[in-house]
Amino acid sequence: MMDTQLTLDSMIKRTEQYFPKKEVISRTHSGVQKFTYSEIVGRMKRLGSALESLGVNKGDRVGTFAWNHHRHLEAYFAIPSVGAVLHTINIRLSKEHLIYIINHAEDKVLFIDEDLLPLIESIKDDLETVQAFVVMTDNETLPQSSLSPLYSYEELLKNAESSYEFTTEIDENDPAGLCYTSGTTGKPKGVLYTHRGIYLHSMALAFKDTVGLSESDVILPVVPMFHANAWGMPFVSTWLGTTQVFPGPGMTPKLIAEMIDEYKVTFSAGVPTIWLGLLQELEKGKYDTSNVRALLCGGSAAPKGMIQAFESKFGISFLHGYGMTETSPLVTVTRIKSTMENLSDDDRLEVLSKQGLVVPGIEIKAINENGEIKPDGVDMGELLIRGPWIADSYYKDDRNTEAFQDGWLHTGDVVTLDEEGIVKIVDRTKDLIKSGGEWISSVDLENALMAHESVFEACVVAVPDVKWQERPIACIVLKEGPEHQISKEDVLEFLKPQFAKWWLPDEVLFIDEIPKTSVGKFLKSKLREDVEKELAL
Amino acid sequence: MMDTQLTLDSMIKRTEQYFPKKEVISRTHSGVQKFTYSEIVGRMKRLGSALESLGVNKGDRVGTFAWNHHRHLEAYFAIPSVGAVLHTINIRLSKEHLIYIINHAEDKVLFIDEDLLPLIESIKDDLETVQAFVVMTDNETLPQSSLSPLYSYEELLKNAESSYEFTTEIDENDPAGLCYTSGTTGKPKGVLYTHRGIYLHSMALAFKDTVGLSESDVILPVVPMFHANAWGMPFVSTWLGTTQVFPGPGMTPKLIAEMIDEYKVTFSAGVPTIWLGLLQELEKGKYDTSNVRALLCGGSAAPKGMIQAFESKFGISFLHGYGMTETSPLVTVTRIKSTMENLSDDDRLEVLSKQGLVVPGIEIKAINENGEIKPDGVDMGELLIRGPWIADSYYKDDRNTEAFQDGWLHTGDVVTLDEEGIVKIVDRTKDLIKSGGEWISSVDLENALMAHESVFEACVVAVPDVKWQERPIACIVLKEGPEHQISKEDVLEFLKPQFAKWWLPDEVLFIDEIPKTSVGKFLKSKLREDVEKELAL
Repeated sequence: MMDTQLTLDSMIKRTEQYFPKKEVISRTHSGVQKFTYSEIVGRMKRLGSALESLGVNKGDRVGTFAWNHHRHLEAYFAIPSVGAVLHTINIRLSKEHLIYIINHAEDKVLFIDEDLLPLIESIKDDLETVQAFVVMTDNETLPQSSLSPLYSYEELLKNAESSYEFTTEIDENDPAGLCYTSGTTGKPKGVLYTHRGIYLHSMALAFKDTVGLSESDVILPVVPMFHANAWGMPFVSTWLGTTQVFPGPGMTPKLIAEMIDEYKVTFSAGVPTIWLGLLQELEKGKYDTSNVRALLCGGSAAPKGMIQAFESKFGISFLHGYGMTETSPLVTVTRIKSTMENLSDDDRLEVLSKQGLVVPGIEIKAINENGEIKPDGVDMGELLIRGPWIADSYYKDDRNTEAFQDGWLHTGDVVTLDEEGIVKIVDRTKDLIKSGGEWISSVDLENALMAHESVFEACVVAVPDVKWQERPIACIVLKEGPEHQISKEDVLEFLKPQFAKWWLPDEVLFIDEIPKTSVGKFLKSKLREDVEKELAL
Repeated sequence: MMDTQLTLDSMIKRTEQYFPKKEVISRTHSGVQKFTYSEIVGRMKRLGSALESLGVNKGDRVGTFAWNHHRHLEAYFAIPSVGAVLHTINIRLSKEHLIYIINHAEDKVLFIDEDLLPLIESIKDDLETVQAFVVMTDNETLPQSSLSPLYSYEELLKNAESSYEFTTEIDENDPAGLCYTSGTTGKPKGVLYTHRGIYLHSMALAFKDTVGLSESDVILPVVPMFHANAWGMPFVSTWLGTTQVFPGPGMTPKLIAEMIDEYKVTFSAGVPTIWLGLLQELEKGKYDTSNVRALLCGGSAAPKGMIQAFESKFGISFLHGYGMTETSPLVTVTRIKSTMENLSDDDRLEVLSKQGLVVPGIEIKAINENGEIKPDGVDMGELLIRGPWIADSYYKDDRNTEAFQDGWLHTGDVVTLDEEGIVKIVDRTKDLIKSGGEWISSVDLENALMAHESVFEACVVAVPDVKWQERPIACIVLKEGPEHQISKEDVLEFLKPQFAKWWLPDEVLFIDEIPKTSVGKFLKSKLREDVEKELAL
């Protein structure tokens, strides 16, 4: 067979040739703009030329610090297509971590949204490798800034070579992307993506048996483009000629609902918090969601009640996915096998609330101290993953020993596997509650609590206990309105029929907000501290 | 990213783990048998063990000479999974070609269906490398045969190591399969498939935007397993856990219709002749075809009338594909882009009658003496292809220079490309009719003729002409029944409104049968000879 390399530049060649009139819709600070793929690929090439004129060479890292919009998409393809590495930087990181990762990645150029300039300005003196800053703005004049040298994105494109073509020789194993995990402890760790990994992951997203992305879809990536490549969607969507709708800065549930309605969105992806907000918005307003075929939910588990509400009230399929920055990220996705078509509604909802089946191409297993766990839906073990789009190390990091052993990625996530092989995330290893020698799943308790009609969000953490070693404490954010003012006793009564007695939380705390990480996950370490303070432990 | 190799053994691991209860239905001489994938994968492993005990080593070629059934499927995976090469041999080849390819491939072992034993017996003295013959039979006793040593497939499995696992270290670029093209002239040429090529091709078949094969499908491969790996369907279907229905020896339209009905088939694939026969059968009988979502048609172009009949009478989508043994084979497939949804019925049918859009992962272009052709639906040029599942040479062959140039496969097929990039096969380069300095497409004339209600099959060939260089002659097989007895004048009247005058055939010959190649394509070289004799040219 031909030695054809699986590289990203080949994807945009296809788009340009077969889908020149399909559209990219992009919301930025100055409003919504529409581009054809012909225009977008033309701009990508100009950006490639501009990168070369900025001195970007093969293998160099180029950072982006931006929302979801068309310029970010252009950077997604132009940077890897000149052989450089697209380093997407989480805009919600602390200054300390920003400085760390930009220096650790040795970014040569940074692409920055205009409204995010102040964040980079505030750390500029600590950046050791950056040689140029590019502001992604619609404005014709360069903003006032202490960054130097500072270029205007549109100015660079205007002055770029219009006949530029991507001609860099790229091997499929060359690096294409870099993303740092936003761990809750320690310095962030970098994951280097190769062209091959992104290409194969894109193929997997196009399978009818996974999320089945298609040219006929209109996708709205709510998941940030600085978070595991927006789950790979910009890559596969561009390749297939799918219409893309980028929501830009400052997304709100109302904005998402409006864009879904106006642009006839068929598919979107994001974390449960987003979908909770959207559900409330849809219930309030009058939006046309009839084109939406599915929402993909990842990051953490979605409550059953929400899944059911989207399906029954709006006819929208709710797909659960599981993945990590280290896994590109797609590892599992909801799949009702043909042999499961006769499930009762309850059993079906139970399947939908799990993280799904491993996608073709990836292998998983789960282990505990007794070896591989039994696929019985009860036995718990740590999830291990391997495959062609799974990281084999952290980028230039000596903290590689724990996560990467014997050719498997050790995720730190605790799962059960049922007899169909469907994965359920039970907990993070470090969030499991060890009570009297047994394990209690904080996630199971949280999901049960979030199914209560008055509960907006719930988080369960462990606190030290002299007798039992650890005991669970429930922290609850109630929905607004007097009808939702429930008591600790109400909560415990609600849980009692669902769990063994020793699983029930020792305490129920009503709080205003659950602290979250920069990617919207519960920040349990912080909450645990707060709880210990509150309970004076 | 991990250096995970894309190999076939990983596919059956997935099947065994997640789809153990899904079924493979197989018709052999003794009737229809059902197996679970758990049983099939168990048998594959035993076959792996048996292959090793027969002395098959990594890299050895192992031939199969068989119909479409479960044992052939087992060989499809077991042979490559021990690191050997699955050489599927076309059972319709001449003895001369059979001897040539078995010796050229240096097959070490041959797996043969019981009813095909006589063919191999008749050439056994000319086989130079075969060390063992295995008869694929349901019978418990070994048949009388002059082949030696001769083993029984089931006996080998019975005696194989039950705990055998595939452990051979395989690189994705190692060879997995071998298939010889059944060219109409010269010795057959071998195409060597790698694990990587087959794996990526399988991924492409699973795309929602190609044929979208899925676990929920029930597939019936009518296309023979000795013909370009049955278009790759056994590989992807096993991987995804799709139910497979193998029709076995001596397929008839009636048999296919019955199996479609009985096993609730959703998807099938074959050449136009098969679908013509099936259509006639469906019109006669009372079959339930309500589960069929699509039929894939390749090998040569299907007449519009047939496409329309399947859609309008039976609600069955008809997908056109294009490929060759050299291309694994999928290169293009019918795709109505979302931008084409408002086409008129006629325009839509026109699109469906073309060969479709190139699948993601593959690149095509078409060239003539002026360079790349214009995508205007008129300009004609030879189709060139490249990609990771396209051959880069013929196996141990010095006839590599013509087909493989500058990194492209030169197909010898003449195409037009419309502005959507959709491919239409106009002719084989050598079948184009050159009349008065212009080109006439024999395929266009054939398709028009086959749309006539009295025409069963039609083939147009060129004959030498003193004045015009070449002129077209139409050869027609009429449908049965007195109402279908039309004249030469009827035929020409029918064509007149559709073509320029100089395209009209100089002669119309009514014949009993069109000579065909071993894979069911029109054998134009033979027909041309017959015509020249008939017309005393």
